[in-house]
Amino acid sequence: MGTLNRDDCLQLDQNDPLATLRNEFSIPSGLIYLDGNSLGAQPRTAATRAQEVVAQEWGEGLIRSWNTAGWFDLPLRLGDKLAPLIGAGAGEVVISDSTSINLFKALAAAVHSQATRQATSPRRIIVTEASNFPTDVYIAQGLSTWLDRGYQLRLVNTPDELAAAIDDDVAVVMLTHVNYRTGHMLDMAGLTELAHANQALVVWDLAHSAGAVPVDLTAANADYAVGCTYKYLNGGPGAPAFIWVAPRHLPAFRHPLSGWWSHAQPFAMLPEYQRHSGIRAALCGTQPMVSMALVECGLDIFAQTDMAALRRKSLALTDLFISLVETMCVGHGLQLVTPRCHEQRGSQVSFSHPHGYAVMRALIEQGVIGDYRDPGIMRFGFTPLYLRYVDVWDAVLALKRILDESAYDAQVQPEAVT
Amino acid sequence: MGTLNRDDCLQLDQNDPLATLRNEFSIPSGLIYLDGNSLGAQPRTAATRAQEVVAQEWGEGLIRSWNTAGWFDLPLRLGDKLAPLIGAGAGEVVISDSTSINLFKALAAAVHSQATRQATSPRRIIVTEASNFPTDVYIAQGLSTWLDRGYQLRLVNTPDELAAAIDDDVAVVMLTHVNYRTGHMLDMAGLTELAHANQALVVWDLAHSAGAVPVDLTAANADYAVGCTYKYLNGGPGAPAFIWVAPRHLPAFRHPLSGWWSHAQPFAMLPEYQRHSGIRAALCGTQPMVSMALVECGLDIFAQTDMAALRRKSLALTDLFISLVETMCVGHGLQLVTPRCHEQRGSQVSFSHPHGYAVMRALIEQGVIGDYRDPGIMRFGFTPLYLRYVDVWDAVLALKRILDESAYDAQVQPEAVT
Repeated sequence: MGTLNRDDCLQLDQNDPLATLRNEFSIPSGLIYLDGNSLGAQPRTAATRAQEVVAQEWGEGLIRSWNTAGWFDLPLRLGDKLAPLIGAGAGEVVISDSTSINLFKALAAAVHSQATRQATSPRRIIVTEASNFPTDVYIAQGLSTWLDRGYQLRLVNTPDELAAAIDDDVAVVMLTHVNYRTGHMLDMAGLTELAHANQALVVWDLAHSAGAVPVDLTAANADYAVGCTYKYLNGGPGAPAFIWVAPRHLPAFRHPLSGWWSHAQPFAMLPEYQRHSGIRAALCGTQPMVSMALVECGLDIFAQTDMAALRRKSLALTDLFISLVETMCVGHGLQLVTPRCHEQRGSQVSFSHPHGYAVMRALIEQGVIGDYRDPGIMRFGFTPLYLRYVDVWDAVLALKRILDESAYDAQVQPEAVT
Repeated sequence: MGTLNRDDCLQLDQNDPLATLRNEFSIPSGLIYLDGNSLGAQPRTAATRAQEVVAQEWGEGLIRSWNTAGWFDLPLRLGDKLAPLIGAGAGEVVISDSTSINLFKALAAAVHSQATRQATSPRRIIVTEASNFPTDVYIAQGLSTWLDRGYQLRLVNTPDELAAAIDDDVAVVMLTHVNYRTGHMLDMAGLTELAHANQALVVWDLAHSAGAVPVDLTAANADYAVGCTYKYLNGGPGAPAFIWVAPRHLPAFRHPLSGWWSHAQPFAMLPEYQRHSGIRAALCGTQPMVSMALVECGLDIFAQTDMAALRRKSLALTDLFISLVETMCVGHGLQLVTPRCHEQRGSQVSFSHPHGYAVMRALIEQGVIGDYRDPGIMRFGFTPLYLRYVDVWDAVLALKRILDESAYDAQVQPEAVT
């Protein structure tokens, strides 16, 4: 593959069965967008849909739209559209709140479930990776501290250490399927099986998996999952997240964020809380309908393809990127951070470089948008829905020129954003 | 006032110094919208702003808009715009999450603060009204149950019972300033003072107060407050809510929803949670930016007036409505539920009627939109920003005709919405 030239890439695009899906998005011309793992691109239908929701559903329908425009049921209806992408069934997933909030619900429910099962000798260990996206660790810390019953986090440093860490002291294993920094993908089925063999429950964070790689929560026999709709699902900036609960856990699904949308009869305005028996139990309060409605624009595009086809293209794009970088940019100190092995790779490629931040800034100035994460890691996300093989070639060429010409300010430091 | 006719009302509109503010909203023609206490009307700028955020900030700016479009700071910037309407200072309030979630944070923080102060003999009573909006009670139940340290709710049945209930066993008083069903407004300053005299802290829910009545959290020496932006603030369906923390409580402000947006350095991606020292500590995860951006359209309209002027018109509208209903609809069994006394009245009027649900349905069919709450209560919200005196007259005339002609289906029952 290292011998491919730009024309070969154009030819790959010509033969790409998914090529037309790019037309479903509004991508600024001249831009190569390799940051869909952070914020997905705008579906072409989003602007029109936003107009409908604001001018018609809100402006004309006003309060009536909670029924007539289906706002109240939207978290479930969109959850059902998302479900096939993550191996979930209808009525098992809702779009709601943020990933952090949903993680709190799922983790609380898992802890509660374990405390109930292990009433005499309850386990107090929550296993996760130190390299997990920080909010996951912070939420686990927050929940553990507040429960004030001796819950402790057991942090492992590399995926290899997980197997040893998941022993019979563990109550809950909380893992992110694809690591946000390295793009390393964990073995969902294998780790879930290991956890279950140790009577632990597993919460999966699918922030970098949903819409990016095939996920089958049902086949993996997973317990709970949460994730994000604004990355590979292209739902819009900060769009509401999702939460899935395995049907077998719904009868005992309890979390402390027991707002009225999780009530069995929310409009009966009853003074006593009574949990909804279905997945609505994972809701809390009123949801932001304009942002939520736009999630559908992203989800609808997936109906034109399937995750197996997207995975094939994703791996072809990331293979091509790795191969071109390693041949065209050889000798410039770039180190591949993402696993070379397909089974362990998400839909992003990370390279480290001593001046990673400066190089990424130079790339962005040239219209090749990736992002940067300490220490020294340049992240490149590959969304097969809208990326072309020629984009990969052009991005690597831009990177090669910046490195060849040292066309970056080696003194520039990551800004402290507070 | 009972002798006013429609022309008098038109004259009142002619002389209304706030009359032109109606032009800032897009109100469907022929509709009399008396449900702004549930979902506020659409500001005229909202559709354009939605286009900007979706097509330009998201579509063109993509990931860069977190900085260039100011997305990351929006919860604080909009909080600062809201602050003057609730007697808060800059940097004291953020727009974020839902009211239910924010209530959980505030209540958790209040409970934590009390547990720290009363380490040797901690108080475990949370006082609220049984007639509070249910989500408030459910959230308090959820938090109490989960803390598992003997926290109990003490529910009072009427506002008159509050004084006796706030004794020196009480840790936290959680009150809604204006009751969603009755429109009864509590004495914020007096009850806060009473709570403090008993060493209790107070969480105020301003869902039906912010933008509806003058609120001065600072003057009342309040501790925590939460509220809603989609009612009288006209922020859009399910728009993100707000949370305020008195500056004196910020140093010890702790809640378990410790997501990355509440971290001192969210982009440093540090493995250890470190709470932000400012009001960002009240945030949790990534916010829905399209919905959030529209909150500004509603807030900006308030800059053209002030809450004292809005209160004068609000009371004039609700006085007129009560007076007209009681004269024009006399003998039809309508009972005023909302306090007659201005000091105890929010910006809504509730009347009960044996066939309240059926009558409200008939009204809505005629384009007069209020809503219904069990048992038998018809709610009419009065938003002085866009309502005219003639709207009040026309609404009461419609009500009178329906009652005079029994033009409603007395058999129809409130639908069970699940």
